[in-house]
Amino acid sequence: MIIVTKSGATPAEIEHIVERIAEWGLKTEVSHGAHRVVIGVIGPEDLIREKPIAAIPGVESATPVLKPYKLVAREFRGTESKVKIGNVTVGGPEIVIMAGPCSVESKSQITEIAASVRDGGARVLRGGAFKPRTSPYSFQGLGIEGLKLLAEARESSGLPIITEIMDTKDLPEIEKYADCLQIGARNMQNFALLKEVGRSKLPVMLKRGMSATIKDLLMSAEYILSEGNFNVLLCERGIRTFETMTRNTLDLNAVPVLKAETHLPVVVDPTHGVGVREFVPAMALASVAAGADALMLEVHNDPEHAKSDGEQALLGHEFAELVQQIRKVAEAIGRSV
Amino acid sequence: MIIVTKSGATPAEIEHIVERIAEWGLKTEVSHGAHRVVIGVIGPEDLIREKPIAAIPGVESATPVLKPYKLVAREFRGTESKVKIGNVTVGGPEIVIMAGPCSVESKSQITEIAASVRDGGARVLRGGAFKPRTSPYSFQGLGIEGLKLLAEARESSGLPIITEIMDTKDLPEIEKYADCLQIGARNMQNFALLKEVGRSKLPVMLKRGMSATIKDLLMSAEYILSEGNFNVLLCERGIRTFETMTRNTLDLNAVPVLKAETHLPVVVDPTHGVGVREFVPAMALASVAAGADALMLEVHNDPEHAKSDGEQALLGHEFAELVQQIRKVAEAIGRSV
Amino acid sequence: MIIVTKSGATPAEIEHIVERIAEWGLKTEVSHGAHRVVIGVIGPEDLIREKPIAAIPGVESATPVLKPYKLVAREFRGTESKVKIGNVTVGGPEIVIMAGPCSVESKSQITEIAASVRDGGARVLRGGAFKPRTSPYSFQGLGIEGLKLLAEARESSGLPIITEIMDTKDLPEIEKYADCLQIGARNMQNFALLKEVGRSKLPVMLKRGMSATIKDLLMSAEYILSEGNFNVLLCERGIRTFETMTRNTLDLNAVPVLKAETHLPVVVDPTHGVGVREFVPAMALASVAAGADALMLEVHNDPEHAKSDGEQALLGHEFAELVQQIRKVAEAIGRSV
Amino acid sequence: MIIVTKSGATPAEIEHIVERIAEWGLKTEVSHGAHRVVIGVIGPEDLIREKPIAAIPGVESATPVLKPYKLVAREFRGTESKVKIGNVTVGGPEIVIMAGPCSVESKSQITEIAASVRDGGARVLRGGAFKPRTSPYSFQGLGIEGLKLLAEARESSGLPIITEIMDTKDLPEIEKYADCLQIGARNMQNFALLKEVGRSKLPVMLKRGMSATIKDLLMSAEYILSEGNFNVLLCERGIRTFETMTRNTLDLNAVPVLKAETHLPVVVDPTHGVGVREFVPAMALASVAAGADALMLEVHNDPEHAKSDGEQALLGHEFAELVQQIRKVAEAIGRSV
Repeated sequence: MIIVTKSGATPAEIEHIVERIAEWGLKTEVSHGAHRVVIGVIGPEDLIREKPIAAIPGVESATPVLKPYKLVAREFRGTESKVKIGNVTVGGPEIVIMAGPCSVESKSQITEIAASVRDGGARVLRGGAFKPRTSPYSFQGLGIEGLKLLAEARESSGLPIITEIMDTKDLPEIEKYADCLQIGARNMQNFALLKEVGRSKLPVMLKRGMSATIKDLLMSAEYILSEGNFNVLLCERGIRTFETMTRNTLDLNAVPVLKAETHLPVVVDPTHGVGVREFVPAMALASVAAGADALMLEVHNDPEHAKSDGEQALLGHEFAELVQQIRKVAEAIGRSV
Repeated sequence: MIIVTKSGATPAEIEHIVERIAEWGLKTEVSHGAHRVVIGVIGPEDLIREKPIAAIPGVESATPVLKPYKLVAREFRGTESKVKIGNVTVGGPEIVIMAGPCSVESKSQITEIAASVRDGGARVLRGGAFKPRTSPYSFQGLGIEGLKLLAEARESSGLPIITEIMDTKDLPEIEKYADCLQIGARNMQNFALLKEVGRSKLPVMLKRGMSATIKDLLMSAEYILSEGNFNVLLCERGIRTFETMTRNTLDLNAVPVLKAETHLPVVVDPTHGVGVREFVPAMALASVAAGADALMLEVHNDPEHAKSDGEQALLGHEFAELVQQIRKVAEAIGRSV
Repeated sequence: MIIVTKSGATPAEIEHIVERIAEWGLKTEVSHGAHRVVIGVIGPEDLIREKPIAAIPGVESATPVLKPYKLVAREFRGTESKVKIGNVTVGGPEIVIMAGPCSVESKSQITEIAASVRDGGARVLRGGAFKPRTSPYSFQGLGIEGLKLLAEARESSGLPIITEIMDTKDLPEIEKYADCLQIGARNMQNFALLKEVGRSKLPVMLKRGMSATIKDLLMSAEYILSEGNFNVLLCERGIRTFETMTRNTLDLNAVPVLKAETHLPVVVDPTHGVGVREFVPAMALASVAAGADALMLEVHNDPEHAKSDGEQALLGHEFAELVQQIRKVAEAIGRSV
Repeated sequence: MIIVTKSGATPAEIEHIVERIAEWGLKTEVSHGAHRVVIGVIGPEDLIREKPIAAIPGVESATPVLKPYKLVAREFRGTESKVKIGNVTVGGPEIVIMAGPCSVESKSQITEIAASVRDGGARVLRGGAFKPRTSPYSFQGLGIEGLKLLAEARESSGLPIITEIMDTKDLPEIEKYADCLQIGARNMQNFALLKEVGRSKLPVMLKRGMSATIKDLLMSAEYILSEGNFNVLLCERGIRTFETMTRNTLDLNAVPVLKAETHLPVVVDPTHGVGVREFVPAMALASVAAGADALMLEVHNDPEHAKSDGEQALLGHEFAELVQQIRKVAEAIGRSV
């Protein structure tokens, strides 16, 4: 921690700052510059990271030296982590494609789409049973019935399944069916939920919130790891900006930044990120080139009748063609699909 | 709903769009312009609001004519709603001041601050028992013990209390102690939680999410009202922008917009909004001038030792002086404190 | 400047960093912490502020201790500056109202509006002759003819005039007519223009760019002062965010921040800030309560036929009523209008 | 244009709206729905696009049916445009690499870098002579001397040159030396400058402003085309968001959107977009996969001593290696380098 004092901070104020730091168990080194006094804090930064240093009179700024995340930090492992969803490994040379509809709507719908995306190249099936919808009047998902249909689609297709959890009290039920839990963007800082899935045995895919910084995303993942669950995937799915021609602004910059900051695998969801069907393929290819370890794509067999997000879902044959292109780009950068 | 077709949309595509709308139970009126075909949809817009119209081939855009919120809309009531917290009415000519510490830390802390803010002019006591913190290593609140201390402070000060709920499973316990529930910015789209508090008898203050549009905030409030709880307060507390000299960007523009769009009372939290103690008074006065029905302010008796947000909390005497100024501005616009 | 090295920075890298700093004429103090090496740079920070320190191998971050602006800094003067527009002083206890149409459209239009806003309480007349318009097909202003009409309106109304400059080559002509130059939001970082008006004798009102941080605004003002022109007003006029119910997000937080950071007077333009006529009064009152030294308001005598921005302009009588309210709020905070 | 009236709009207000539209030369079609009256405007939308329709009493919203840009619209040409810089064609199957230093600093610097980037695979040399810098105390570029050095580097390397113009009055001088003009992000809405380069014979690369929507970018390009210069390249270079781990947020979503909306070629500048050297390669590859027609990359032979932006420039050998990777990705999507 490096503390810069205000111009005109008095010797008594400086002394008071030093005493406060000492009270919290750390030493200080005071440097008198021409315009400012700089106080370096020596010792474990964790002891004072959360202290209200800016509330001490005379303090202009207090800048930490270390990052606030530990277990998720790249340095913690040194190497990249691999996370298994069923028998599929995310985080290795193979880029894993997860695909399926936004919502599970019926047995025939999910079974057909599961077969279609498996044949098109998907390794994991996605589908929402509990749906976070902006409006209370929108389709809210089939709930437990949807979980059962997903499990049947796993049987028929052989693909492991990932599905969203929205409430701590649903965890026992969802754990019976899912191979991977998903925390949606709107719940990225639902800390009660993060702690709960941190105690689960299932892997968790954590989506970046619409206004979450990369640091915020890493801190939310830290919640899950700190409860003991290290099987976490981070998913970039678009942030909210002023641009209106796309649903969100898929922030591919986050991909190389995350790969440098953490050992956890990085997933990109171009479907929600750009939110317009015709632009999904370009963003999917770009995600792979940027370094994503996995992609999540929405596919529907009848988008015009989809109960949610039909305007951004690919058709089965469009998905299969896209996977062919993804494979070429993956190979161009030394990976596979 | 008004549908604009793509340049070059074929007659077959136009016909297909019209059929889809008919299938959903509505009529259409097709206008052929020089460059585009415009299809007006006639009948109750709710029937197609959630349909994936943009997924139909040939559609360029589909613009609703009506707002998606109903129960929260100003038109629904015609007049402004009043919400009671204990015996305090929010939404009338009096501007209600809610104040207290960020977190409940101890019996003496909350009792002292309660007396101090009551004497300074507060009508409601705030204090967090369950705390949403970015880091898992930060103080997470005293939990149920904190609720009990709040209840004791209510006894001693006579002020009703507002406190945050973070998880559906905590509702029964919190309902035993609180006079008003608070949903924090990070849970504004935690729809499971919104539904749960919608079934409570207690009033709810819903804070705007960091990247929530005003429409999103209203839709989240709609969730609560649609479950039967009409005692909802909306709180502007700062949005996330690119500016870094303030913690958030308190969006006072939202105040007159909300007053025009909804019948629900509007609260402003300048403390979190600007996030720097020395700037809180200016923003509190501006909030009142902009038309806020209530203010929420953080006050601490020992900010340097506060367990959270000490850098933005006012001292008791600063708060009392600010209330004097607030009173003058309130009177200048024909209201009182 | 405080340099934090990367985890794993080698002794050779540390040494190389120290040598680079020495080469630029400054001394260093190296502290070895448990996880990072911190290098404090001793001596005038200006010598290395612009150096590519982050390009040196082993550097994780380089944080300046001092602010990058000097002449505009509050510390530079110690007291608040006053700026005169004609015989009107901005920056004293009186809050100055500037009002007029978006664009000068005709002699009768500008003359009538000038009389109307003077009678309503305005002290300065605004009106655009050179108009920055998003579309090349929009009305671009009357140019020099508009300047002449403004000068005539000054004669008839007695109000000094402020008008926008968009191009360096127009300065000589505009200087013949204007009492104050305005730099629009879109030109806030048109550095050639900033330098040019920095050499003018006229005062300059500099509007904050739509995505400019407060620091960026101060740095742009620094350009003007560094050329010798200290008569600069800073104007908050709304930033661009994700919110769409308002044209821009008027950032009133900038008012107290600017008052703390700089000695220059602060103007707020609520008309462009919120961009919807019915919300302008609330934001005008809030601007005053937040501490603005002056307001700029758009007024039109026939908004339905205005050549630009008719949807946000107040009518003359609305303006006069608003000034009455502004006066009351101004008095509530110990100022006048 | 489709006008939706306010709930409760009176018959007199509706009639008044219809009369206003008629006065502007267009017909209307009034539909009475259950909750709102919708007025469709029939005839050329251009006649009323700029009219202050929202200023008419009773109007809730006025939504255009057509896009506001014409000459830049994809429909205008039907096919993609090709733009020549010297003898290099941008907009064909070949992805063109433009590279060079941020600023021209000396003869040896620019000559060496020119040879290095040419050998590495660049087809165009970039280099700034007039530099837009946030601080007046930063290096402002060598000006005309820099232009001469660029021309010498063109001689020695054989690469055509692109350089930035910041002020209308510099055009005659810059035209003597440059092969392509660049308008920087900060001048994207410097309309005087846009008109001036619209009258030049040289091609123009227009960079997207930090807070410019894609529509804003297209409207600024429309200014240039409307003056007669159709040789325009559009460049995505990062927008401003809340994220701080990257300098800007490179918005690759803009690439497929622009390819769909306009016939003009699309350039991406990953260097400024992400702003951190180690993340530039990933973003360059992603830009190609997203569909960019050209890339602009900063390369320096001695970044630690660069006079601007050294922290984001690639070294010559890093650039050459990156071009090898770019070539593979280009081939994977059926293009070349």
